[in-house]
Amino acid sequence: MSSTAGQVIRCKAAVAWEAGKPLVMEEVEVAPPQKMEVRLKILFTSLCHTDVYFWEAKGQTPLFPRIFGHEAGGIVESIGEGVTDLQPGDHVLPVFTGECKECRHCKSTESNMCDLLRINTDRGVMIEDGKTRFSKNGQPIYHFLGTSTFSEYTVVHVGCVAKINPDAPLEKVCVLSCGISTGLGATLNVARPTKGSTVAIFGLGAVGLAAAEGARISGASRIIGVDLNPNRFKDAKKFGVTEFVNPKDHDKPIQEVLAEMTDGGVDRSVECTGNVNAMISAFECVHDGWGVAVLVGVPNKDDAFKTHPVNLLNERTLKGTFFGNYKPRSDIPSVVEKYMNKELELDKFITHQIGFSEINKAFDLMLQGEGLRCIINMET
Amino acid sequence: MSSTAGQVIRCKAAVAWEAGKPLVMEEVEVAPPQKMEVRLKILFTSLCHTDVYFWEAKGQTPLFPRIFGHEAGGIVESIGEGVTDLQPGDHVLPVFTGECKECRHCKSTESNMCDLLRINTDRGVMIEDGKTRFSKNGQPIYHFLGTSTFSEYTVVHVGCVAKINPDAPLEKVCVLSCGISTGLGATLNVARPTKGSTVAIFGLGAVGLAAAEGARISGASRIIGVDLNPNRFKDAKKFGVTEFVNPKDHDKPIQEVLAEMTDGGVDRSVECTGNVNAMISAFECVHDGWGVAVLVGVPNKDDAFKTHPVNLLNERTLKGTFFGNYKPRSDIPSVVEKYMNKELELDKFITHQIGFSEINKAFDLMLQGEGLRCIINMET
Repeated sequence: MSSTAGQVIRCKAAVAWEAGKPLVMEEVEVAPPQKMEVRLKILFTSLCHTDVYFWEAKGQTPLFPRIFGHEAGGIVESIGEGVTDLQPGDHVLPVFTGECKECRHCKSTESNMCDLLRINTDRGVMIEDGKTRFSKNGQPIYHFLGTSTFSEYTVVHVGCVAKINPDAPLEKVCVLSCGISTGLGATLNVARPTKGSTVAIFGLGAVGLAAAEGARISGASRIIGVDLNPNRFKDAKKFGVTEFVNPKDHDKPIQEVLAEMTDGGVDRSVECTGNVNAMISAFECVHDGWGVAVLVGVPNKDDAFKTHPVNLLNERTLKGTFFGNYKPRSDIPSVVEKYMNKELELDKFITHQIGFSEINKAFDLMLQGEGLRCIINMET
Repeated sequence: MSSTAGQVIRCKAAVAWEAGKPLVMEEVEVAPPQKMEVRLKILFTSLCHTDVYFWEAKGQTPLFPRIFGHEAGGIVESIGEGVTDLQPGDHVLPVFTGECKECRHCKSTESNMCDLLRINTDRGVMIEDGKTRFSKNGQPIYHFLGTSTFSEYTVVHVGCVAKINPDAPLEKVCVLSCGISTGLGATLNVARPTKGSTVAIFGLGAVGLAAAEGARISGASRIIGVDLNPNRFKDAKKFGVTEFVNPKDHDKPIQEVLAEMTDGGVDRSVECTGNVNAMISAFECVHDGWGVAVLVGVPNKDDAFKTHPVNLLNERTLKGTFFGNYKPRSDIPSVVEKYMNKELELDKFITHQIGFSEINKAFDLMLQGEGLRCIINMET
């Protein structure tokens, strides 16, 4: 048992006091984990678009002060009542969505959308008692996605914690707790291209490139990247992308361009932009008879997906996925193993590394569209 | 070799001379089969909505005189050049779509949409030479769907002929050459419900009831039939349908009614009406996380399928199917075996039996919405 178990820990956290304003490094109090919770010492975290989206809080009901962060790797410091799967010292990845192992979704082999711990962007408190575990001078500070990894210590529900191989370098595998697994799983678990097939990837950000990495691992012979930004094409080659299509270079729908390039359509497509027109193109560009389109990107709330039903009747399949269909506790450890056995390449996703005190730089980089993942070292 | 091989056969056929007018029993000439064709003696045929739709020819470019009919069972009379898979005397089912065994679709394990022999409702001639094999006094009579089974003899491409167990009663298994296989395969091959699951069937005509039969065979514990016509509910019980929902009885979208009945949605749905709103309901009524909706019914040409993309991202799957994803030559013989080993019940689909001379009665029954399948005995 660690000497801090059962006690409030005072530590550094990057607190967002207001929407869109730079985070402020504060000393906060982190309460001990309650029933079915664990307290983690975060060693590395990275920044994902979702953090920025809710930090900007445009068109949202603001929930501040809040500690953001959900892609991270750390070590269990102490465990709360009822926790049997984890113990202090375990190496873990906190995950923004959970796996209670009891609900219909967790018991289904087909779903990872846990009823109890499914992603909830509005909730800023722990589900056990509706309270926060963070505070400063008595003022509660809200949680984000149940993870809040922009803090040296954080409290997470045990269902949102994946126990991983302790030999895995946390400064690398921390990126598997959100975007990279999302894209990778969309291809490996949902699109499932066969060896030699042709795969189109819409959107060449980190998630799309992880989907391309999945296609590369699957042995796809052609991986066609689609993006409006030609600057993304050069880096995409490292991820196995063999051809590039910029919709701006064509005066007809991009699904027609892709069908012409591929004798009728691609075998699989993965949509990672969230733009509804890209979703429609991603569906309509797959080959009749066997084509499968997988939607990953999150749309606007008023978007409508629209297609002629004959596109479906001609034996195309349209699916969506959430977190790459991975169950956080059951499946993420095996994704870490894919990295350990060199099947999955992660280093190429990590384009920047900074210390915790410089965390606002990571926001600047993302807002400028620079790089893919910026790893934040909590100890420097 | 039969004594008629290589010769023109004169026989009875029910000829449609004009759109929507009663068929006329005529003596016609049936030319010998050419390269990759076989000539069949039809013993039993049945009537399907597709025959009636193209006989009515509303809003279509009319193609008359024509011999309709595509659900049938018969015996090979003679074979043309290059045919090696069939010989005279073989018991067969002609099929409206084919399997060349050479194209990308036929070589794919996922598709049955043969490039060469895919359904073509506009073509009235054989693909070998662009001519008809039927004539009367020198006037060509057009084919329909490459089958034209409303004739004692017909010529069919070998790729559209399934060789079946000669012990199978053709007066029963003839219904497997179109609608029943379409519905059955939609469930067994595409929706694939697991034992104990809940399945919704939209449209309780012959195809929908065959989809229900597939759900019964799969061991579904709840099979919910959805139809606007309450008269269909009584008969549907024979097909394993356990509950009935009439959208007219509810003042909210039927997908919401189904979600309430099933704690969040059905596990699988199969849409057999072709109405685009029913398609949308069939998709939106499946459970998030694992629900699969399968579209079977053929829509109007200007219809748009429309849904919020989040319905997909929440891990629902939308698929379409054509002929139940069965490859005609490779798979239909095994469907016949399902009947032979009493797994599949066919008798309940056969509600009427008439002689060939009374064929117009079968059209009347279908136009009145009476019964499911009317078997026409070609020898009486």
